[in-house]
Amino acid sequence: MAENDSLSDFLASAVDAAKRAGEIIRKGFYETKHVEHKGTVDLVTETDKACEDLIFNHLKQLYPTHKFIGEETTAAFGVVELTDEPTWIVDPLDGTTNFVHGFPFVCVSIGLTLGKVPTVGVVYNPIMNELFTGIRGKGAFLNGNPIKVSSQTELVKSLLATEAGTKRDKPTLDSSMNRINILLAKVRSLRMTGSCALNLCGIACGRLDLFYELGFGGPWDVAGGAVIVTEAGGLVYDPSGKDFDITAQRVAASNPLLKDAFIEALQQTE
Amino acid sequence: MAENDSLSDFLASAVDAAKRAGEIIRKGFYETKHVEHKGTVDLVTETDKACEDLIFNHLKQLYPTHKFIGEETTAAFGVVELTDEPTWIVDPLDGTTNFVHGFPFVCVSIGLTLGKVPTVGVVYNPIMNELFTGIRGKGAFLNGNPIKVSSQTELVKSLLATEAGTKRDKPTLDSSMNRINILLAKVRSLRMTGSCALNLCGIACGRLDLFYELGFGGPWDVAGGAVIVTEAGGLVYDPSGKDFDITAQRVAASNPLLKDAFIEALQQTE
Repeated sequence: MAENDSLSDFLASAVDAAKRAGEIIRKGFYETKHVEHKGTVDLVTETDKACEDLIFNHLKQLYPTHKFIGEETTAAFGVVELTDEPTWIVDPLDGTTNFVHGFPFVCVSIGLTLGKVPTVGVVYNPIMNELFTGIRGKGAFLNGNPIKVSSQTELVKSLLATEAGTKRDKPTLDSSMNRINILLAKVRSLRMTGSCALNLCGIACGRLDLFYELGFGGPWDVAGGAVIVTEAGGLVYDPSGKDFDITAQRVAASNPLLKDAFIEALQQTE
Repeated sequence: MAENDSLSDFLASAVDAAKRAGEIIRKGFYETKHVEHKGTVDLVTETDKACEDLIFNHLKQLYPTHKFIGEETTAAFGVVELTDEPTWIVDPLDGTTNFVHGFPFVCVSIGLTLGKVPTVGVVYNPIMNELFTGIRGKGAFLNGNPIKVSSQTELVKSLLATEAGTKRDKPTLDSSMNRINILLAKVRSLRMTGSCALNLCGIACGRLDLFYELGFGGPWDVAGGAVIVTEAGGLVYDPSGKDFDITAQRVAASNPLLKDAFIEALQQTE
């Protein structure tokens, strides 16, 4: 099949793949309560793998010359270097803890980079039936309706999101709780939902004002959401204030009005 | 209108009131992004007040001899003592910060106590269209389907929920972050969604394994959810392990299997 370089076609293909994978996730989501715990873990692995296979097969058939980076494949075969080639970066199931527990913040995240720049993004939550999409230069959408970041200008009125992460050693816990303590004194409140991609989409549609996360899984957590945030009028940046590096496992996002104050607050936590 | 003492009728009346109030919340929820900030605050107050008036008027007409305790009325006229009389305890809009920001965890919470015991509970999230109901001795339901608490037995595999609260003074922040730090070392992960009533319902339907909150607004945050948790096979108790006191602004909830370990962990944070 010939490669079609229209960004709209890339998006349509990614949405198609995300919706098919979403069907698998939805089915598993309502089954987790009916399997024994060992079975639950297997169900996660199976769902993750089945979704990644489905998405990769779908996109590879349409775009055989493109590169692919996925959470599952990386776990199995090691890190694939991000190049300037068109590269699909896929998290087949973001929010696996939520999936196991039946907590409704789970999603498929698909991003396409061109010249290492996130250019097409799809984040689909099949439980809440929310499809976030973005194409570089062409806006961001939730279920087809344009979205934009919040217009909040003050930290003290801002809703912050972050995550507890997966590391449970004392230095990491002390450092992350100290960071949250300092930030909480400056913002309105804190949300933790368990999905990095959906946190980015929360920034994009203005439900959240501030988001940061350090030490998450990999570029698949942010590749789709980054386009959606920037196309909704937001900024994605390193928590230090430096440029966002999709491979760095560090991300912050907000509207442009809050960026400087948020970086200043984050720096006070170092 | 004659008083009808059937618990099922009480529940049906509460569901009716919650759904009507939910319509007002849903309408306001999608408007908050289109009003200036001062307008947003007004919108919260107006929505809160309109919902409480609607619910109180509806139930007072049906049950003129019953007592009523509501967040808005208490804020305006002071604390009403809980007596043994049938008493409707209402939070017309739980999750006001979420309401302002368009974050989908908002709900109406209605509880009926008989002899101070929570006996009928309704928690309705009109954005996610989830209606949680419970009648003492007759089970708990989500949109009409029976629900039960998780079967988790180990803290380390448990999903914990709590909230950042509204106090931002240093002693309170230090104490609550220290508590979270100690607990996070023992559990799988942490969720903060911004609604006490929906956290209780999360325990009831097994999405969450552990929940505690200290210093929340009042009995209206827990009166509806407490029945739903216990009817789903769960336990509601004081974080110290003592009996649950609906007026104490302290709550913990879990399945029975996790209670002792959770209390032990909570005590280590004192």
